[in-house]
Amino acid sequence: MSEIRYPVERLENFIHAVLAAHDVLDDHARICAVRMIEADLHGMHGHGIFRLPPYCRRIREGGYNLRPDIRAERETHVSALVDGDNGFGQVVVTFAAELAIQKARESGLAWIGIHHGNHAGAAGVYAALPLAHDMIGMYMAVANANHMPPWGGVDMLLSTNPIAYAIPAGEEPPFVLDMATTETSYGKVKVYAQEGRPMPEGWMMTKDGKPLTDASRAEEGFLLPIGGHKGYGLNMMIGALAGVLNGAAFGSDVIDFNKDFKTPTNTGQVFFAMRPDIFRDLDEFKTEMDLRIREIRNSAPMEGGGPIRIPGENLARRKEQMRRDGVPVAAPVVVQLRGLAEELDLEDKLAD
Amino acid sequence: MSEIRYPVERLENFIHAVLAAHDVLDDHARICAVRMIEADLHGMHGHGIFRLPPYCRRIREGGYNLRPDIRAERETHVSALVDGDNGFGQVVVTFAAELAIQKARESGLAWIGIHHGNHAGAAGVYAALPLAHDMIGMYMAVANANHMPPWGGVDMLLSTNPIAYAIPAGEEPPFVLDMATTETSYGKVKVYAQEGRPMPEGWMMTKDGKPLTDASRAEEGFLLPIGGHKGYGLNMMIGALAGVLNGAAFGSDVIDFNKDFKTPTNTGQVFFAMRPDIFRDLDEFKTEMDLRIREIRNSAPMEGGGPIRIPGENLARRKEQMRRDGVPVAAPVVVQLRGLAEELDLEDKLAD
Repeated sequence: MSEIRYPVERLENFIHAVLAAHDVLDDHARICAVRMIEADLHGMHGHGIFRLPPYCRRIREGGYNLRPDIRAERETHVSALVDGDNGFGQVVVTFAAELAIQKARESGLAWIGIHHGNHAGAAGVYAALPLAHDMIGMYMAVANANHMPPWGGVDMLLSTNPIAYAIPAGEEPPFVLDMATTETSYGKVKVYAQEGRPMPEGWMMTKDGKPLTDASRAEEGFLLPIGGHKGYGLNMMIGALAGVLNGAAFGSDVIDFNKDFKTPTNTGQVFFAMRPDIFRDLDEFKTEMDLRIREIRNSAPMEGGGPIRIPGENLARRKEQMRRDGVPVAAPVVVQLRGLAEELDLEDKLAD
Repeated sequence: MSEIRYPVERLENFIHAVLAAHDVLDDHARICAVRMIEADLHGMHGHGIFRLPPYCRRIREGGYNLRPDIRAERETHVSALVDGDNGFGQVVVTFAAELAIQKARESGLAWIGIHHGNHAGAAGVYAALPLAHDMIGMYMAVANANHMPPWGGVDMLLSTNPIAYAIPAGEEPPFVLDMATTETSYGKVKVYAQEGRPMPEGWMMTKDGKPLTDASRAEEGFLLPIGGHKGYGLNMMIGALAGVLNGAAFGSDVIDFNKDFKTPTNTGQVFFAMRPDIFRDLDEFKTEMDLRIREIRNSAPMEGGGPIRIPGENLARRKEQMRRDGVPVAAPVVVQLRGLAEELDLEDKLAD
């Protein structure tokens, strides 16, 4: 077995049960379960159920506040600083997203900063939340382990700092872009390591400047930014706006959540929601989004290339397929999850 | 002579005089002059005085509205759609920037969309405008000539679509990131062509997938996005938010302003300004920006690498140097400008 497929609801219920057994509040456990499986549905398996065992370890070592008082500070009609009070990242960002959507409904747009949050998983999952309200979403985060040096340097002061945008369309699937500002995410490197697959050149580099393709040797090297100094600049911009501006960790203050399961991470994120109709009638906007999406998709492919993809359309296809055929969980993760189920004596032991 | 240096004020006055002689309103001519020389001061010479001859050609062929009624539509406390009425891009974006800064002063932040605008030059020049008000700036634009196909395609439906961010610091120069979502800008390619310099591999590709390094053959190939599909995604996001959302040109509707000097471009841009103190006390924020900037700059360089640069710090240095030693204008541009001065019988013929 290299992977086993389980129905969406079964995995959600499994995560819920595991977290509840760890004394996580019922509604928090439910939100975590839904957001984590959404990450799997987005194809971001490095942020999906894969993360449950390390989250449990973090709970056990006291790294989370299981009774957080998540609240908005410095609130205006169009902004707030959310104090996550060291609660689950999924719960804190969901709180911020709902607040942003509510403010955007009334005022057109809203920018919510977060501090004292935690790792929340796939950026695209959050950026996509406003889509159900016909709104545009944007999300950025200071990621939780520094695996990249500044451009031209070797001290690992930067993380993968992802940014994601979601833009509604009409009949076409929405545009959803979810990207680390590094060539790849460390989560993906971990999946490659777990699966024993070699990484393409350009993802990582050793400290003496050579390409690193063996994912199991990730510790010996560092991630590379997209577009050289440009990706480094984007990465630092996210650090400034999601980290420094919110009084959250950036640079040497970032806790490596894969090594330290105890120290609060003070994770910083930004969530932004905006109503298209403050600029253009919604239907007109969605119709032209369809037109531009089709124009690009139907344009001529390179010889031997194609099909031309729109960011998010694979996602829509993949989601549908997983809802039908089940969500794939890699074999080594299944082993860990079954171990958790045994230990906690859960009803569902994730047998095939 | 490969370049001649002129004092800032002399070049500003020269642009002002040339535009005024073309029946441009006095205050519009002044704004254009200042913004264009700011582009040169930012080191973005492809968007500086270099553009004056093609702008003049555009005026003569009737491509601009020289008496535009630039106004805000669909206004809220935190947003507006600015109708540029086909006026000069520099004037329209400056109008939007001032409106955004005023709204952000009152409401914390503001997002201004622009349609019926024109090429406005260097993105970083605009993003940096809020810095004087201790605000964060962001700017994006649908650029004015499609030189890039969708990822995996060959039909040139996309432009260089730049994005720029400016973030205040305390004692350190502000963080200013100004980047095309392509590996390079077409403006830079034109400068290389003008100077007869070969381009690095990776900037452009021929239609059959080979590297293109001869800038004078730019017409035979296309620009490449940063980070492959990621840069393509960012580029399309900008197209959607600066173009489609504002009812401005994107995709096949983009006019190539280097070939067509007559058709209104309906250029779309986004200008965003935000007060840091809606999230954190300003002094605290600026002090920590200094700390993070220094931490990164002083980190260990790669062997044979370094110094480690902060986006914007070169800019600050370069600006100061040009204010002292003059702004360099490439020899072929000087020839064109002197031609204009002769033709218009200006007082300053730009003699050495």
